[in-house]
Amino acid sequence: MSYEQSHLYRLRHSAAHLMAQAVSELYAGAKLSIGPPIENGFYYDIDFPEPFKEDELVKVENRMRELANLKQPITRRVVANKEEARALILNGHKPEDEPYKLELLDAIPDGEEVSFYDQRAIDKQGKERSFVDLCRGPHVENTSEIKAFKLLSVAGAYWRGDVKNKQLTRIYGTAFETKDELEQYLHNLEEAKKRDHRVLGRELGLFMFSPRVGTGLPLWLPKGATLRHVMTDFLQKEQVKRGYEPVVTPHIGNIKLYEKSGHIQTYRDKMFPFMEDEEKETYILKPMNCPFHIEIYQAQMRSYRDLPVRYAEFGTVHRYEQSGEVTGILRARGFTQDDAHLFVTPGQLQEEFIGVVDLMQTVLKKLGLKDFRARVGTKDPGSDKYVGHDDNWTAATQAITDACDQMQMDYEVSPGDAAFYGPKLDLMIKDALGREWQMGTVQVDYNLPERFELEYVGEDSKPHRPVMIHRAPFGSLERMIALLTEQFAGAFPFWLAPTQIAVLPIADRHNEAAIALSDRLKDTTYDTRALRVEVDDRRESLNKKIRENQRMKVPYMLILGDKDLEAGTVGVRDREKGDLGAMTVESFLSNL
Amino acid sequence: MSYEQSHLYRLRHSAAHLMAQAVSELYAGAKLSIGPPIENGFYYDIDFPEPFKEDELVKVENRMRELANLKQPITRRVVANKEEARALILNGHKPEDEPYKLELLDAIPDGEEVSFYDQRAIDKQGKERSFVDLCRGPHVENTSEIKAFKLLSVAGAYWRGDVKNKQLTRIYGTAFETKDELEQYLHNLEEAKKRDHRVLGRELGLFMFSPRVGTGLPLWLPKGATLRHVMTDFLQKEQVKRGYEPVVTPHIGNIKLYEKSGHIQTYRDKMFPFMEDEEKETYILKPMNCPFHIEIYQAQMRSYRDLPVRYAEFGTVHRYEQSGEVTGILRARGFTQDDAHLFVTPGQLQEEFIGVVDLMQTVLKKLGLKDFRARVGTKDPGSDKYVGHDDNWTAATQAITDACDQMQMDYEVSPGDAAFYGPKLDLMIKDALGREWQMGTVQVDYNLPERFELEYVGEDSKPHRPVMIHRAPFGSLERMIALLTEQFAGAFPFWLAPTQIAVLPIADRHNEAAIALSDRLKDTTYDTRALRVEVDDRRESLNKKIRENQRMKVPYMLILGDKDLEAGTVGVRDREKGDLGAMTVESFLSNL
Repeated sequence: MSYEQSHLYRLRHSAAHLMAQAVSELYAGAKLSIGPPIENGFYYDIDFPEPFKEDELVKVENRMRELANLKQPITRRVVANKEEARALILNGHKPEDEPYKLELLDAIPDGEEVSFYDQRAIDKQGKERSFVDLCRGPHVENTSEIKAFKLLSVAGAYWRGDVKNKQLTRIYGTAFETKDELEQYLHNLEEAKKRDHRVLGRELGLFMFSPRVGTGLPLWLPKGATLRHVMTDFLQKEQVKRGYEPVVTPHIGNIKLYEKSGHIQTYRDKMFPFMEDEEKETYILKPMNCPFHIEIYQAQMRSYRDLPVRYAEFGTVHRYEQSGEVTGILRARGFTQDDAHLFVTPGQLQEEFIGVVDLMQTVLKKLGLKDFRARVGTKDPGSDKYVGHDDNWTAATQAITDACDQMQMDYEVSPGDAAFYGPKLDLMIKDALGREWQMGTVQVDYNLPERFELEYVGEDSKPHRPVMIHRAPFGSLERMIALLTEQFAGAFPFWLAPTQIAVLPIADRHNEAAIALSDRLKDTTYDTRALRVEVDDRRESLNKKIRENQRMKVPYMLILGDKDLEAGTVGVRDREKGDLGAMTVESFLSNL
Repeated sequence: MSYEQSHLYRLRHSAAHLMAQAVSELYAGAKLSIGPPIENGFYYDIDFPEPFKEDELVKVENRMRELANLKQPITRRVVANKEEARALILNGHKPEDEPYKLELLDAIPDGEEVSFYDQRAIDKQGKERSFVDLCRGPHVENTSEIKAFKLLSVAGAYWRGDVKNKQLTRIYGTAFETKDELEQYLHNLEEAKKRDHRVLGRELGLFMFSPRVGTGLPLWLPKGATLRHVMTDFLQKEQVKRGYEPVVTPHIGNIKLYEKSGHIQTYRDKMFPFMEDEEKETYILKPMNCPFHIEIYQAQMRSYRDLPVRYAEFGTVHRYEQSGEVTGILRARGFTQDDAHLFVTPGQLQEEFIGVVDLMQTVLKKLGLKDFRARVGTKDPGSDKYVGHDDNWTAATQAITDACDQMQMDYEVSPGDAAFYGPKLDLMIKDALGREWQMGTVQVDYNLPERFELEYVGEDSKPHRPVMIHRAPFGSLERMIALLTEQFAGAFPFWLAPTQIAVLPIADRHNEAAIALSDRLKDTTYDTRALRVEVDDRRESLNKKIRENQRMKVPYMLILGDKDLEAGTVGVRDREKGDLGAMTVESFLSNL
């Protein structure tokens, strides 16, 4: 049973109504708009006459509790026509008091059933308390079922998600079947707040934002840039081993390229504004790398003997996310995909697809992400946002599910989650707090090769059309670093840690030896790993230095004092295990 | 004596007039505009009534020779006023026949001397041949001095360099004092054509362009992307050793950032069109990285103990070059600077500047570029394109020349070659054909720290202003790769070569051994260099494979046949020295 069919989903929907009832009672003139259940709870968007503040949530919550305890039965009520619905919405008010509900009503196609949900009861004072809301439902049967709930936060949200409309107040809340589940969720939420990559990103010096640079455009600080480098270096070497070839393509392209690819038609709303130059040529920031790699494929004659061709690029793309939707580096406007495009013969498709999934699994394993599941995103049959013929879609989807079957990999099919040019396999990762992240992706594409008329000469000396595989094991560097930061609460595994070792001289007279030790560890001729080492020679107490490096989650501290210099040892401190005692540098390194 | 004061410069100027005289005789209705001497010759921009084609150059050249032999004396003629000048320009023609000369005349400030140059003689048929041109001069005394000349090419050029004006035909030519010098120059030109990075770039698979992507936007093919990676990897490691820290910053920024930096005021004409979004925020493609690194510097409190701070980034920037000025990757619209910004105390400036020059010299030496000179670009006192106070400029210029003096490095001062925010030291490299390239640059900047109000807390606990050093040892990756390609005629040194070793199995039955050998050479556990190796297992004759890999300038070919497999050897072929005979792989590697 899907979440949408569950009792929990109905419970949360009813909790949203309960909150709306409480708000209506408490805030005269508050205009309601929509209030759906969502993944981990519910929200309601409300137009308040005065700004609503987060500290008022308790008041609303208390009122909700009172209303829930009234044990109001929730009943569905179908009206005969829109006139009746209108009267029910207005309930004696003026149309300008209910602009959102009336607009929602207008949007319901004529002839479609219009339903309301009604909850009411008599309170201890003998007064009737009631709430009626235009709603498709379904709901639970009685407000008394809503026992374990909490209001969480307040945010701004444009009416209908359109920045040109009025900004409403969105109140987020959550509800569970049991108090225990709610407690666990709230605990995880607290933990998630501590692990928030935006907070840790700042504290650990990974990245920053600046209003003078712009929304959703991260500036990577030295430690974050180092982390990026370690990740790309690892993946690049893995890719070279597997026969990928690197390419580097421009950040902008002429609009002609995207007309050809179909991006203009299907992806326009995610693109930055166009740039038209004095020669009347129009350029756009690339939202995807694929058309560039296609240009490279197409620049020379290809024979079946040249295939598969595998072009890889850490390509920075730009997508115009609404400013309200931008979230740290998890959802940024500029980000770097670990992108590659494979051009293969139909006969090579399955093997290459399996090879890509194998690479993705290798990457996740290396990153310490073990808990993942596969989701096959297919075309939403009801949408027109896709390009290409149905038989291409069928062949591509079949190729993916066949490969999964051959790998004996379980998967779930998710209609509507395809790319605009083809279906895809996404790896969904469950993190330490049980949250699921959509990360690496691999897509099978018969359509772009057709749009660009790609060819190779087959064994029969005739032209044939290759199939494309689009893939990104990380998904994007930004998204993966956000996940890793939260997964490890900033304590990155040794191989990933921007600073792997901090050398702590106890007093100024040990600084020289500390720098010499650091130089020795960094030197590849000494240790081929070229360790990333920092010397903390600030004039602070040893305890303060230890605290500080612990806070920065440096995996190892090497402490140098008089005794160490005499004995030729270092005091080793492990981020997790604490003091490991004195040992020689060789012994420390051999245990790494 | 500078070139502008030389006889050669006058000779070339006179050759331009001679060409204009020939064109006037041959093409009725051709309208002349300007015709100056330039670095290696001269040109004249002409508005032809019919399109002028390159194969007509011989005809013009022959007529020039005839006119030169008439031994026309060249005389200077100063007119009393603009009226007289106007009459002399029109010489009976209508004003619309001489639009360019009349516009040039109008632009001469009133009261300034207006001069013409006049050359005339009676030919064998007794007819007077003459040519009079509005010109400041100077010229040689007689057309008979113009003996060693050649017309080279035809290009389009907008009148006054403005794309909104009419496009004229530019005829390029050159002239020398002697026939020998001309021959040598033409030989070098031929050699330069063979080494043209645009030609070699295509042949060697380094990069490509595509009209669907756009003018001046290179797509780096696998071999070129590898070359870039080898170069950045080398520099990055060198920088880490020297205490640089990596950063990664966005490709676009809000216009506010560039208003603050002064780019909008001084650099507007080199910027791509602006992007204004639906929230009325305006973004631009970054033309320089500096403001981003400044934002990072400014995001936290800095103490004198934290300085110098050295932020390095391989930052891709975009500059809107006129499409006629775009030249391969030498002058592209999108390119990657090996940029860094150092924030230093005034007391650290000299040492840090010297450190940067030392790094630049290390880089040039590694690249095998030994022949270079230093040029100090200072402010043009007559221009208003600079920001900042005069005393900042004086201090910055002094810092550069002091550092040069301390390094005992010769330099030449070039007014007008400063950046808009400060003076700079450029390294000018002379290539194998004697041509000079402006490459690495280091700039001292007191002005941007002032505009952004940058600070650090000094030893006295008071705020102080840091000085910035901007530097790029390569200049840009694109420009450096263009130079290296032409310098080495594509035969990159071993450490740089995209493919270092090609393994050539003689027959199909040797393929397996070839792949095993290649895997072994690529593996870092075997050879820490992680050699870049390709197996050429095409079904072609050995001779064809050798020719092909020679054409691709692969440094070494390792040939594998029956005898080799038996003896445990490989046949080694050196790109320059040819066949080196059979040897063991160990022996080959130890000689690398």
